[in-house]
Amino acid sequence: MASLSQVARQAGVSASTVSRYFRGQLSIKTETAEKIRQAASELGYSSPSFPLNETTEPKTLPLNQPVTERTVGPSIGHDIALIVPELTNPFYASLCEAIAAQAQTGNHTLEIMVSGRQPSTESRLVNHVIESKKFDGLIYAGMHRTNRALNHLATSPIRLVLLDEDITIPTQSHPNIVTVDNYSGAYQATSYLISLGHRRIAHIAGPTMLSTTTERLRGYQAALENAGIPYDPQLVFSGPYTEEYGASVLTYLTQPENRPTAVFAGSDIVAIGLISVCKQYGISIPQDLSVVGCDGIRTGKWLRPSLTTLTQPIDDMAIAALDLLFRDNDEATPSKRGDSIRLPLTLTIRESAVPRNEQ
Amino acid sequence: MASLSQVARQAGVSASTVSRYFRGQLSIKTETAEKIRQAASELGYSSPSFPLNETTEPKTLPLNQPVTERTVGPSIGHDIALIVPELTNPFYASLCEAIAAQAQTGNHTLEIMVSGRQPSTESRLVNHVIESKKFDGLIYAGMHRTNRALNHLATSPIRLVLLDEDITIPTQSHPNIVTVDNYSGAYQATSYLISLGHRRIAHIAGPTMLSTTTERLRGYQAALENAGIPYDPQLVFSGPYTEEYGASVLTYLTQPENRPTAVFAGSDIVAIGLISVCKQYGISIPQDLSVVGCDGIRTGKWLRPSLTTLTQPIDDMAIAALDLLFRDNDEATPSKRGDSIRLPLTLTIRESAVPRNEQ
Repeated sequence: MASLSQVARQAGVSASTVSRYFRGQLSIKTETAEKIRQAASELGYSSPSFPLNETTEPKTLPLNQPVTERTVGPSIGHDIALIVPELTNPFYASLCEAIAAQAQTGNHTLEIMVSGRQPSTESRLVNHVIESKKFDGLIYAGMHRTNRALNHLATSPIRLVLLDEDITIPTQSHPNIVTVDNYSGAYQATSYLISLGHRRIAHIAGPTMLSTTTERLRGYQAALENAGIPYDPQLVFSGPYTEEYGASVLTYLTQPENRPTAVFAGSDIVAIGLISVCKQYGISIPQDLSVVGCDGIRTGKWLRPSLTTLTQPIDDMAIAALDLLFRDNDEATPSKRGDSIRLPLTLTIRESAVPRNEQ
Repeated sequence: MASLSQVARQAGVSASTVSRYFRGQLSIKTETAEKIRQAASELGYSSPSFPLNETTEPKTLPLNQPVTERTVGPSIGHDIALIVPELTNPFYASLCEAIAAQAQTGNHTLEIMVSGRQPSTESRLVNHVIESKKFDGLIYAGMHRTNRALNHLATSPIRLVLLDEDITIPTQSHPNIVTVDNYSGAYQATSYLISLGHRRIAHIAGPTMLSTTTERLRGYQAALENAGIPYDPQLVFSGPYTEEYGASVLTYLTQPENRPTAVFAGSDIVAIGLISVCKQYGISIPQDLSVVGCDGIRTGKWLRPSLTTLTQPIDDMAIAALDLLFRDNDEATPSKRGDSIRLPLTLTIRESAVPRNEQ
């Protein structure tokens, strides 16, 4: 029997459009609907909502229809692998959950693998995805600038979308990629602190090997330069995205020659670690130190003071990743140039940063 | 070529013992080692560290050895599926990460699927695990007392371990299961608050349909009864494991006829939600209200005041789940009676609960 992608190809639309059409979840032009129905008929494609020999409008299936009895026909969704560095950082946990929800909406099945931030495991998991011959697509969020195993994808039918971190893949000079605008986000966060009257602003950056770290540092520096504030490398720290690292940095911030009045941390959990040890140093947040985090994890809203932060567009990242994964771009771009989507970070203003003169 | 399980069967030991033996990660008796080597020879089993025709001691492979070049032989690990309700509750995120790390140690590949707490999705994912014919084992953490799709596992070669929540499966009267002792844990947490002099102790329970909720409520009631404190149903609340639910409960706790001096919450994120709105009601933690949470999520340690909580034995749960999954118990128990492992919760005493007379 014909596959969903064959129908999509024949009809000249994306597989995800076909998939959503058959589940009645998409309002599309009559002529597009007709193309899909015709293609399905010609290819002998059958789906639960589009039995063969039926030419009327497809029925709308209820969402989350139970399939326990296994009476439905062949699945029209895809098997998608998602590789992430870790789950204990709530940013990745929320990103996984958003992609899982989005996959569920598209009737796809998402299988998440955790690399533990180990390059060898990142490679092993990519090889597993290729060798198991089970997946139609891979969404890859890495913690290193390269992963040689990704080279093998060039000769595989598995579609790839890089997520969050830009990775160098020699065999794919322009892979599909969904990132956030870390430069602009960091510029915005730093400028916000400057607008509050701060001039000694520390930056706690992520691991130096990441493009996200580099981009945020550039944004931080550009905002300082734009405000005529000299860049002081003594105020920049780089380390892992953990609460422990944030806590450890406070030691340096309290030294007389440093003493910033504000901090922009490249991760909410780093900010939480920093804030949590402030009390024992007699530092009040935000009275003595303004803090802006990054990621927009759920907990930030529930802290007291609540955390001002750069919020990641988690849901938009999930939607963009799935859209790129199954967008039919082979015909349109014979050079296999992938699509690149860069989404904005949003400054969420809460209680942890205040004007300098209120400190 | 023979599989790892065939070698294990022939040698009369568990597959995980064989797996660990070939990776040099296990000290075992000489005679057991000899049995495994002999079985491997007879069956023509070859592994990266045990090439055929080699009868010397297996070499110890370095952990996390990169396999990017794909020069290693057939994988001796298993493909394991893990279904969890959600990832934004850090308890599940940490549990997933611990199981992933444990699977990695055993050279297994773990693929995590998120049900979004929807029964229909829980069923759909179990059917996917069965139909994809790709998995050797399923670790299932459900959010409902039943899942009819699990019945199909009885006629499938896929091994099952239930995790955290006890599920009724008509076709498997005694499935393998790893739980924690919620009764004893709740008894311990409530008794701790009683020992601090509290007598009006509220309990914020989880969703009523869960066995974990029922067990914790029983433990709470038993501790009160043991101390001669009458049970007051006005002080018990039941709802979803979210910060929002915890925040919403405070309204009831501040009413004159209720006013507890302490709260035992069945989830850390519920406790965090409760604590976060206390300030706007003029309630100081722990001076006006002592709070004990449950789960032991990472953030609890970094809050100020830090959160006293019942800590889940995450790592032990991961180890137990994988051990049960591949324990060769078919021969030993022809009735297919599964193993049941119940692990203790540990009270982690921090700052959010204090003696009544210090309030």
